[in-house]
Amino acid sequence: MRSRLVLEYDGGAFAGWARQPGDVRTVEAELTRALAVLLGGAEVPLTVAGRTDTGVHALGQVASYAGPPVRVSGLNALLPDDVAVLACEEAEDDFDARRSATSRAYLYRVLARGPRSALWRGRAWHRSGALDVDRLAACAEALVGTHDFTAFTPTETYHVRFAREVFAASWRAAFELGPGMLEFTVEADTFMRQMNRVLVGTMVEVGVGKRTVDEFRALLRGAPRSQAGVTAPAHGLYLLGVGYGGRRVIATS
Amino acid sequence: MRSRLVLEYDGGAFAGWARQPGDVRTVEAELTRALAVLLGGAEVPLTVAGRTDTGVHALGQVASYAGPPVRVSGLNALLPDDVAVLACEEAEDDFDARRSATSRAYLYRVLARGPRSALWRGRAWHRSGALDVDRLAACAEALVGTHDFTAFTPTETYHVRFAREVFAASWRAAFELGPGMLEFTVEADTFMRQMNRVLVGTMVEVGVGKRTVDEFRALLRGAPRSQAGVTAPAHGLYLLGVGYGGRRVIATS
Repeated sequence: MRSRLVLEYDGGAFAGWARQPGDVRTVEAELTRALAVLLGGAEVPLTVAGRTDTGVHALGQVASYAGPPVRVSGLNALLPDDVAVLACEEAEDDFDARRSATSRAYLYRVLARGPRSALWRGRAWHRSGALDVDRLAACAEALVGTHDFTAFTPTETYHVRFAREVFAASWRAAFELGPGMLEFTVEADTFMRQMNRVLVGTMVEVGVGKRTVDEFRALLRGAPRSQAGVTAPAHGLYLLGVGYGGRRVIATS
Repeated sequence: MRSRLVLEYDGGAFAGWARQPGDVRTVEAELTRALAVLLGGAEVPLTVAGRTDTGVHALGQVASYAGPPVRVSGLNALLPDDVAVLACEEAEDDFDARRSATSRAYLYRVLARGPRSALWRGRAWHRSGALDVDRLAACAEALVGTHDFTAFTPTETYHVRFAREVFAASWRAAFELGPGMLEFTVEADTFMRQMNRVLVGTMVEVGVGKRTVDEFRALLRGAPRSQAGVTAPAHGLYLLGVGYGGRRVIATS
C-alpha cells in the first residue's frame, strides 16, 4: 500500500527538506521520525515532489511512502509546530510523489516598501526600492512556454537537461497583504535547483531598470549563468502545490 | 516639538507594549532604548494609542513623544527584527497618540480548518470545528452602535465607563490567505481590556451553535462578564490602525 502526504512548513528553522548526516534539522527527518512512531517503529523512506532548499517554505508539499495512511491529527501531535500535515491518504499502487508529479507551482513574495516588516520577516524578500510591476509582468509573460533555463541554475550542476516547460507565470500586487507586497506565481513541469530564486532575482533587476525585458527574454535561450542576475533569498519562496495527472495547481483561463 | 511614530510588530516574543520593571521584553522598552540612541542618549517617555497585551500583534500602532523626528531607517537598524517603524514624522504641538486618537481598529484571525497551520502558528487562532460565517456576521452587525460592554472585559477592572461606540464590525472569509481563514475587523472609539478577545471568543460560540445571535445581542446591554464566552487567544489579534481627527481606519460605505 502507498500513501500520500500533503504538508505545510515554515522553512525558516529547517536546513531544507532532505535528510542530512549529522545533527541537522530537516523536514524529512522530522517527518520520518514522527511517521515511524505511528507505523510501529520502522522508519519508512519518503519520496518528495519538490526538494526545497534551506529557508524555503511550503504550502502544499507532497510526499509519499510505502505503507498505510496514518491519522493527520496523530501525526501533527508528533511534529514540531513549524511543520504541519494537511492530509494523509491512501494513494494508487504506483503513486510516487516525485515521479508521478506533472507540475509544481511556486510563489515568491517581494515586499517593495521603504521600511522593513516585522510580521513578514523571514517570509518575504524586503526591497526598499520601487519596482515596476508592468516590467515584471512582461518578464513573467515571456517565461510561459518551453525554454532553455541554463542561465537560471548554478553552473556546477547535476542537471543534464536544461529545457523546462512553464505553464503559467504572473506577478501581481497583493494589496490584501499590505502596501508594497508583490507576488510571483509560476507553474512548470519541473524546476532546476535555485531556478525560481535566480528568475526572481533577474526579474527584479528588470523591475528596477537595470536590465530590459528584451535582455531578460534573450536569457531564456540557453545563456550562461553569468549573464543572469542575483539569486533572490530563499525566505521569499513557497512551494505552493504539486499537480498530478496533468491537473494544474494554478488555474489559467 | 512632538513626533508621531507608526509601528508594526510581531507580538509573539513580547510581554505586550508597556514597559515593566525587571528583565521583561516589551515593545515600549525596545523602542525607548533605540530612540534614546538617536536622540542623544536621553530616554523620552512614549505615549501609545493602544496598549497591546502579551502576544498581540500590531500593523499600525501609533506612539508619540516630545522631541524631533528621527530617521526611520536609523531607528529600524537599532530595533530587533520583530518590531519595525513604518513612519516617524513631526506632529502638531498638542498631538498625543492616545488622547488625540478618535478610533482604534483591530483585526482578529481565526483559522477554521482541521489540521493546524505551520505558517500561521502564533498569528491566527486555529479551531478545528466548522464555523457558521452567517451567524458570525449577524453578531458583528449587532455590535455596531453604542453598547454597554461590561460583559466583555474582566470583572476586576480599572475601567469606570463601560459604554463604547463601535463604528464598524464585520467578519469575512479571507480566501486569499488560504482555506478556512476568517477575519474579524472592528473599529470603535476605544476598547476595554481584553474586549476584542472576549468578543471573538463569544462570537465563535455563536458560530459553532453553542449560543444564539439573540443571546449575543442581549449581552450588549451591560450583562455581567460571567454571561459572555471564553477569551480568545492573544495571538490572533492585530492592532490594525488608529484614527485621528475623526478619520476612520476602516472605510465603511
